[in-house]
Order: sequence, then C-alpha cells, then structure tokens
Amino acid sequence: MRDFSHDHRWLSLNTATVRKQGDLTAIIEACARHGIRAIDPWRDQVAAIGLERAVRAVKDAGLDLSGYCRGGMFPADAAHRAEARDDNRRAVDEAAALGAPCIVLVVGGLPQYSRPGSAASKDIAAARSQVHDGIAEMLEYAKQAKLPLAIEPLHPAYAADRACVNTTKHALDICDALDPARSGAIGVALDVYHIWWDPELIDQIARAGRNRLLAFHVCDWLVPTKDILNDRGMMGDGVIDIKSVRSMVEAQGFAGYSEIEIFSNDWWTKPMDEVLRTCIARHRTVV
Amino acid sequence: MRDFSHDHRWLSLNTATVRKQGDLTAIIEACARHGIRAIDPWRDQVAAIGLERAVRAVKDAGLDLSGYCRGGMFPADAAHRAEARDDNRRAVDEAAALGAPCIVLVVGGLPQYSRPGSAASKDIAAARSQVHDGIAEMLEYAKQAKLPLAIEPLHPAYAADRACVNTTKHALDICDALDPARSGAIGVALDVYHIWWDPELIDQIARAGRNRLLAFHVCDWLVPTKDILNDRGMMGDGVIDIKSVRSMVEAQGFAGYSEIEIFSNDWWTKPMDEVLRTCIARHRTVV
Repeated sequence: MRDFSHDHRWLSLNTATVRKQGDLTAIIEACARHGIRAIDPWRDQVAAIGLERAVRAVKDAGLDLSGYCRGGMFPADAAHRAEARDDNRRAVDEAAALGAPCIVLVVGGLPQYSRPGSAASKDIAAARSQVHDGIAEMLEYAKQAKLPLAIEPLHPAYAADRACVNTTKHALDICDALDPARSGAIGVALDVYHIWWDPELIDQIARAGRNRLLAFHVCDWLVPTKDILNDRGMMGDGVIDIKSVRSMVEAQGFAGYSEIEIFSNDWWTKPMDEVLRTCIARHRTVV
Repeated sequence: MRDFSHDHRWLSLNTATVRKQGDLTAIIEACARHGIRAIDPWRDQVAAIGLERAVRAVKDAGLDLSGYCRGGMFPADAAHRAEARDDNRRAVDEAAALGAPCIVLVVGGLPQYSRPGSAASKDIAAARSQVHDGIAEMLEYAKQAKLPLAIEPLHPAYAADRACVNTTKHALDICDALDPARSGAIGVALDVYHIWWDPELIDQIARAGRNRLLAFHVCDWLVPTKDILNDRGMMGDGVIDIKSVRSMVEAQGFAGYSEIEIFSNDWWTKPMDEVLRTCIARHRTVV
C-alpha cells in the first residue's frame, strides 16, 4: 500500500467539493496554489466557463485528470431516450477534449428522476434493464473515442433517483456482460461513501482486479447524516475505515489517484483554501 | 396472492406508527375502533404502561401480535456485552408474556452507536462478527421460550448506527449458519423499505422460503427523503412497488400479516384516527 503521509501527489480533487466557492477557473488556480496536480471536473462547471476555456485552463496548469463527471442517467421513457443518448455522446466528446482517463457513469434511477419529464414508473428492474442497454450503446461510441466508461455503484439510498446500480457486484456484472474480454473499455469507479457497508466488498474488489478499477473516490459517512445527498463528511470525520478500502484496491494493483469528492452543505460554506488545506492534511493522515 | 381490496383482516399495526399520538393503551383502543386485529408493539411503549397492563390490554382487546420490537443491538465493547445479553433476554421474556409470534432483531451497527458508551470502532466486519455471536447466544435462550428470532435486514443507510446486516442474503446466511435444519427458531423480518432496492431480492426471498419468512412490513420510500430515519412514507406515496414484493413473499407461502411500520415526522403530527383510516385505505389499494 502506498504511503500517503509525506506528500499529496496522489490526491485528486473532484471539483464538486468546492463548487459553491468558485468557478472552474478559480478551482484550477487554487489547485496550483496547493500543489494539487489532478482534478475530476463536472460537466456543468465546464459548461459554465466553456469547454475550450476549460481545456486550455487544464492544459496551462499542467493538471492531470482522474475522471470526468458525469455520464449516465439512462432510464427514460421513449420520448426522452434520444436525449439521454445524445447527452451521453456529448459527455464523451467533452471528456476526450479534456483528456480525461475515463468518464464516470451515474447510471440513473427511475425514469421520472433520471430524465425529468419521463413518465413515472416504480419498476426498478425495468430501469436496470434500460441502464444495461444504455451503457451498451454508449460503450460503442466511447470505444471510438478510446474513452473508458467507469460505472459508479451508488449507495442504495440513491436507488430511486440517482442510480439503480447499487453494489460493486451489480456494476461488475454489467462490465462482464458487455466486455467479457476485459478490454479496458469499461470498469468501475469506487467511492468509499457508496460501498463501505457492503459485506461482499473485498470479494468484489478482487473480482474487479486492476483492469476494472478505473477510479477511487474518498470522503466519509457521518453519523448522523443530516442530508441524504449533501452531508458527506471530510475524511476522518465519519465511520469509514478508508485505509482499509484503499488497501483492497491497491492489493489489486490500483495505483491511480485518490479522488476527494465531498458534497457537503457544511464544507461548501468554508473558504476554498481552508477546504483544500484540510483535504491535503486528511489525505496524509486518514486516507 | 391474497386479495386485500375488500377488508383489512391481514393488516397489523406496528405501534411506532402512531407513537407520538398516544400510549399503548390509546393505540389498542384505536385499533378496536378501526377493526385492526393485530399489532406489533415496541418495548418502550410496553414499558411506559407496564408489562402486566400491556399483556392484559392485548388480551382484553382480543388482539393478535405480528411481532415484538425489538431485540438486538449486539455490538458492544467488553464492558457492555453483558448488558446487551441481559437486555435481549428480557426482550424474550416480554415477548413470551405478550404472546408474540416472533421477536424482531435490529442487530446494531458499530458498538459506539449500538450500545452507547462502548469504545468507538470503524471495524464493521468485527461488528458483524459480534452480531453473529450475539444472535447465537440469544437463540439458545429464545429456543427455551419457544420464541422465534426474526432478523430484520436494515437499509444500508443504517449500517453504522442501527444494523450492520443490510441485505436479505446476509440475514439468511446467519440463519443458515445457526439453524441449518430450518427448525423455525430463526428467520427474517422483511420490510419493503429496507429491501426494495436489492437486485437479488427475488432470489433471496425464494431462498428464505416460508420457513424463514417470519414477518412482512410495509411503508414507502419517499423522493426526496428529508430525514434519514423519520421520513418514511405512507404506502402509495413513494416509489416502492409494494404489491410486487408482497407477491414474492406470498409465492413462498407467507400468509401472515402485512404490518405497517411508518416512522414519519409528518404522520406523527396527524390525529391517530386519520392515520389509521389512511393505513386501512392504502392497505386495500396499494399493498
């Protein structure tokens, strides 16, 4: 297991962590100030400053990317399926322009939440079937761009509205079905927040192996959690044994960034430099 | 699948649903007014009026029980283990006195939440090991009282603080380990709120079979969920396909009560009779 205690060269910042404190340009400047050498930007933050400007800012700063957030939201009624497909193709194009190593997929839940305006459904099995088909279609496009897809299993608390792929096992089942040869075109993005509770975690990470482990995200699970979406904790403030999960992915040969992604109504109120200083300190001690 | 549309003979009321509106005596009186013939009382509500009085009230009202809530909270540090054991034995004694058909187990999460005062830990695997050992010990005591134990897998959102058994599969693994002969001494209590998201649900319910299906609870999952503990929905107000889950348990021969358990800051503010009328109406239409 790599020693993170002396530097933060393997820290990547998911830009949602400081989305309220400044635009992507300001975040990139802050990363330079703090010696953070990689980010994972969100599409809306890229769109806000324009793709070309974002590409240039990343390049000028010499920043590495650990992913691009996000594609997905596949379940939709018939009237919204083309929208989902086209939107995901644009995400691939943007990720390629930015030089992202993979595109993170938040696959979507029931169609009325995944693609608003879609007819309401309670059929989660049907949503899962649409996710499978949607990823299959997107994969063909992404392969042309040599852009790997990283399915992110989300915590079951988000099954209805954000992602109906809720376990590492389910995500890997999709990978195996669509890419039995383990070509590298598809894998998983594992965030400790979503998977720490899973009793099958160590076995599924071993099943993934290095080939399928495309991204590793950290934050913490707070007790109590005050907001189901935006009360993620800074690493060390919650109950997740983060080092234990990192040791599992590194035992498979994962040697990429440890990406910090914290959606938090609390941390969003703090100055960007304070957040980044804290991220770096915790990266060294508890990640 | 049984037809619930014409009456509510298979409706049981978990008394936590109206815990803020009155004590157990008032709840039992309200059940009589509404023709509800079964309840699942909570220990604190029984204690508040006294066990003897509760036993008499249940008997005088001719009420059936669908369970007793709850035993469990097994993980504890060494200083609190005897407390956990003794507390669970008292739960068995109370359940036997009340004539409950089973005792529902909320197994507990990390020791600092499960048995407050216990030393803090982030080792969820160790907590799970303690749960296994704690149930094994309690099972010996419960067998003497001929009181079946019903392990309730809780939604992964509660893994840290309430129950580290979060899937039907995990609960059944414990049942199989402790009672391979399927004697009837141990099984599961399945609440749609906790399990609806599980992609393995239908297979695991089939694995449980009638022998292991000791209780079936209903409410609904709201989107958005405003409070992680106390924002459960009335059946029909959320995204769970409740009939589909009931059809799965009934396909295995389950023919017991459909127990309504709603922890809700909203429903707790409404008059008890309004809540019960709504429960009955929804039981007939969406359960």
